[in-house]
Amino acid sequence: MASTGQVIRCKAAVAWEAGKPLVMEEVDVAPPQAMEVRVKILFTSLCHTDVYFWEAKGQTPLFPRIFGHEAGGIVESVGEGVTDLEPGDHVLPVFTGECKECRHCKSEESNMCDLLRINTDRGVMLNDGKSRFSIRGQPIYHFVGTSTFSEYTVVHVGCLAKINPAAPLDKVCVLSCGISTGLGATLNVAKPKKGSTVAIFGLGAVGLAAAEGARISGASRIIGVDLNANRFDEAKKFGVTEFVNPKDHDKPVHEVIAEMTNGGVDRSVECTGSVSAMISAFECVHDGWGVAVLVGVPNKDDAFKTHPMNILNEKTLKGTFFGNYKPRSDLPSVVEKYMNKELELEKFITHEVPFAEINKAFEFMLSGAGLRCIIKMDA
Amino acid sequence: MASTGQVIRCKAAVAWEAGKPLVMEEVDVAPPQAMEVRVKILFTSLCHTDVYFWEAKGQTPLFPRIFGHEAGGIVESVGEGVTDLEPGDHVLPVFTGECKECRHCKSEESNMCDLLRINTDRGVMLNDGKSRFSIRGQPIYHFVGTSTFSEYTVVHVGCLAKINPAAPLDKVCVLSCGISTGLGATLNVAKPKKGSTVAIFGLGAVGLAAAEGARISGASRIIGVDLNANRFDEAKKFGVTEFVNPKDHDKPVHEVIAEMTNGGVDRSVECTGSVSAMISAFECVHDGWGVAVLVGVPNKDDAFKTHPMNILNEKTLKGTFFGNYKPRSDLPSVVEKYMNKELELEKFITHEVPFAEINKAFEFMLSGAGLRCIIKMDA
Ligand SMILES: NC(=O)c1ccc[n+]([C@@H]2O[C@H](COP(=O)([O-])OP(=O)(O)OC[C@H]3O[C@@H](n4cnc5c(N)ncnc54)[C@H](O)[C@@H]3O)[C@@H](O)[C@H]2O)c1
Ligand SMILES: NC(=O)c1ccc[n+]([C@@H]2O[C@H](COP(=O)([O-])OP(=O)(O)OC[C@H]3O[C@@H](n4cnc5c(N)ncnc54)[C@H](O)[C@@H]3O)[C@@H](O)[C@H]2O)c1
Ligand SMILES: [Zn+2]
Ligand SMILES: [Zn+2]
Ligand SMILES: [Zn+2]
Ligand SMILES: [Zn+2]
Repeated sequence: MASTGQVIRCKAAVAWEAGKPLVMEEVDVAPPQAMEVRVKILFTSLCHTDVYFWEAKGQTPLFPRIFGHEAGGIVESVGEGVTDLEPGDHVLPVFTGECKECRHCKSEESNMCDLLRINTDRGVMLNDGKSRFSIRGQPIYHFVGTSTFSEYTVVHVGCLAKINPAAPLDKVCVLSCGISTGLGATLNVAKPKKGSTVAIFGLGAVGLAAAEGARISGASRIIGVDLNANRFDEAKKFGVTEFVNPKDHDKPVHEVIAEMTNGGVDRSVECTGSVSAMISAFECVHDGWGVAVLVGVPNKDDAFKTHPMNILNEKTLKGTFFGNYKPRSDLPSVVEKYMNKELELEKFITHEVPFAEINKAFEFMLSGAGLRCIIKMDA
Repeated sequence: MASTGQVIRCKAAVAWEAGKPLVMEEVDVAPPQAMEVRVKILFTSLCHTDVYFWEAKGQTPLFPRIFGHEAGGIVESVGEGVTDLEPGDHVLPVFTGECKECRHCKSEESNMCDLLRINTDRGVMLNDGKSRFSIRGQPIYHFVGTSTFSEYTVVHVGCLAKINPAAPLDKVCVLSCGISTGLGATLNVAKPKKGSTVAIFGLGAVGLAAAEGARISGASRIIGVDLNANRFDEAKKFGVTEFVNPKDHDKPVHEVIAEMTNGGVDRSVECTGSVSAMISAFECVHDGWGVAVLVGVPNKDDAFKTHPMNILNEKTLKGTFFGNYKPRSDLPSVVEKYMNKELELEKFITHEVPFAEINKAFEFMLSGAGLRCIIKMDA
C-alpha cells in the first residue's frame, strides 16, 4: 500500500482532560514498529472501562489520550517481524494480548500474558516506550494498547485477533471486549451446571452477555441485579427471569437473594465495577458449592472485605479479565459462534452514531440508556 | 450390654471457665436418644479448635463444657432409629456430620450437611435441645457434637464414621479432625498439579498434613510459613523444602514469597487461624492460575480484606471444612490409606499423656511444642 512506512494523518477523538468531551482532531499516526500493526478502524464502540479512565475519578489520570478498545478493523500495514497478519486481514483489537511465549500464554488456565496483559497506566508502545500518535509533534497517549477512537491506530500484533473476513465488523466489533468478557465469565469461569440458579450483578452489556452465557448453559433461574430499573425490561430479552433492585429493599441484597433461593445462588457474576456489588455477589452464593466471579473494574482505593467465615463455608471467589479468553487463540471461535447463529449480537447494539458524534455515546453510557453504541468511523 | 438404656457415670475433663485448666469430674452420661449413639472413647487428641473455644477470646463462651473432637472409640449402645451402627463398631467422631438426605449431602461438592454441619455455639443435642452430660443434675454443655474429653460421650449417628476394626485407634484417632482436614484441603480442594509450588501457612498438625498432601500430589517445592522457628525442623519430615518466618523479613510475607517463586506460588493452604495469614496466603498465589485455600478458624470480628484487583487477576479463593471429606462416606477410605501405608500418621504424634494429665496437652499446644498429643482414656 502507498501509506506503508509513512505517517498517516487522520481523524481521532482526543480526550484532552478528564471528563471533558472528546475533541475531533487531525492526528499523525506513525508507522508500526517491530511486532506492531497499523489498523484502519471501521467500527468502534464504547465500554464502561473507557468511561472510568476518561472520568479518572478513582483511576490514574493520563492525558491527552485516545481512548477506545472495542472495535473492528482492517490491517493497513505491519511492522518488522509480524508474520501472522498481512494488510487486508480483518482484526479485532483486544486490551489484553497473547504473546504465545510466556508462562501465562502456555498455561491452559490464564490469559494474563506477561508481556501484553492490560496495563491501564501505560500510554505508550512497548517497543520504544513512545506513542505513535501526535498532533503537531505533541505526543498523545495510547489507552490499553488499542486506542480505537482514531481512524488509524497502532497495536501490538499480540493484541489483534484475526477473524473470519465474512463476519460483519459493525456487529462483531462488540466481541472485542464487553460481550466476550461477560460471556466468557460465565462459560469459562463460573461454569454453571444445567438447571442451576445464577445471579448477575449489573445489567449493562457485559452483565447481559454473562446472562446470555447462563442461558446457553441451561440455567433455570437468572436473577438480574441492577440499581437502574430501566435495565430490567431490556434484560428479559437476555433470558433474565427475575429482578432485584437493591434500592427496593431495606436489607442487604445478598440477604434478599438468599431468601429468594433457599440459601443462595449456585453462581454469581459481578459486572458493575462497584465494590459493594462485588461483596454482595460473593456473599449471595450458596455455601458448600457457590462460585462468585468478579468482572467489574474496581477503583484504585477500593477494598474487598468480608468475614473469613464466608470463605470457609466452602464458597469460591474468582476474577477474570476478558472472560478468560486468549484473544488470538480463542476469539476467532467466538466470532464463529455469531456466524453460526449460536450467539446473537444485534440485541446488544442499541445505538449507532457517526464518528463526529462520539460524545453522544458517552452520554448514553452515563445516563444508562441502552447497551452498546456503535461508532461508525467513515460516516 | 448391661449399660444399655442406663445412665453411665464416668470420668470427664470439664472446662468450668474460659482459659482455666480442665477439672477431672465424675459425670453422668444419659443414654442415646433417637439417631444418637453412645461411644466409649479410647483415645482422643487435642486440636487448636478446642483451644480457641476454651480460651474463648474471640469466640462465644459457653461453659461448663466438655471439649474434645479428635478421637477414636467403640460404640457402647445406639438409640432408636440407628441402623448403620451397632455396639462394638469402631468409630471416629467428627465435628461435622453427614445426614445423607440434605442438598449438601447429595451434592458432590459440599460436605456442609444442613442438619449436622459444625455449630460451635450449640452446646446441646439436636433431638431435644438438651445435654446428655450432667454433674449432680447440672447440665454440662457439649462441644461441636462430639465432646470426646469424656470416657463416654453421646454423638449423632451422622457424626460417626465406622472404620476398619483392625485400624489402631491410638493412631487413626488423629484422622478424626486435623490430619484429614489438612490432607483433604490439599488433595480435594487446592489440587496442586505434579511439579507445582505450594505454600503452607502454619506448620501445626493441620498444616503439615496439608504439606503431606502436597508431597503426595508431586509438588516440587513446598514452602512452609510459620512464626514459630521450632516448627521448621519437624516440617522437613513432611516434605517441606523451604521455610519462611515472617518475623525474619521487613516486607510483607506475600512479597517475600513472590520473589522466591517468580511471581507467586501455584497453590497455598492456610492452616493458622490468623486473618493476616489468610490474607497473605491469598495474596501470595500467582495471578492467572493460583488457588488459595483457607482452613484456619477465624475469630468472630475478623475481616478478610484485599484489593479487588487481586481477585480480578484470575486468582481463586476457597475455604474448606474437614478438607471437604464427607465423614461417613469418605473417612473410612482415609483410614485405609493409613492401613496401606500410603499415609504415615506416626510422625504427627509427638506426645502421649494419660487422661488424668490432659492439661499437659493444652500446655504443649500453647507453647507450640510438638504436633499431636494422644490422650489415653484408660490410663
Ligand atoms: N474484567 C474485564 O475484562 C472487563 C472487561 C470489560 C468491562 N469490564 C467492566 O465491567 C463492568 C460493566 O461494564 P459495562 O460496559 O457493562 O457497563 P455499564 O455501565 O453498561 O453497566 C454497568 C451496570 O451496573 C449497574 N450498577 C452499578 N453499580 C451497581 C450496584 N452497586 N449494584 C447493582 N448494579 C450496579 C449500573 O446501573 C449499570 O446498569 C465495568 O466495571 C467495566 O469496567 C471488565
Ligand atoms: N476448617 C477446618 O475444618 C479445621 C479443622 C481443624 C482445625 N482447623 C484450624 O486449623 C488451624 C490449625 O490447627 P492446628 O491444630 O494445626 O494448630 P497449631 O496451633 O498446631 O498450628 C498453627 C500454626 O500456625 C502458626 N501461626 C499462627 N499465626 C501465624 C501467622 N500469622 N503466620 C504464620 N504462621 C502462623 C503457629 O505458630 C502454629 O505453628 C487452626 O486455626 C484450627 O482451628 C480448621
Ligand atoms: Zn471494555
Ligand atoms: Zn504471553
Ligand atoms: Zn479440629
Ligand atoms: Zn446432610
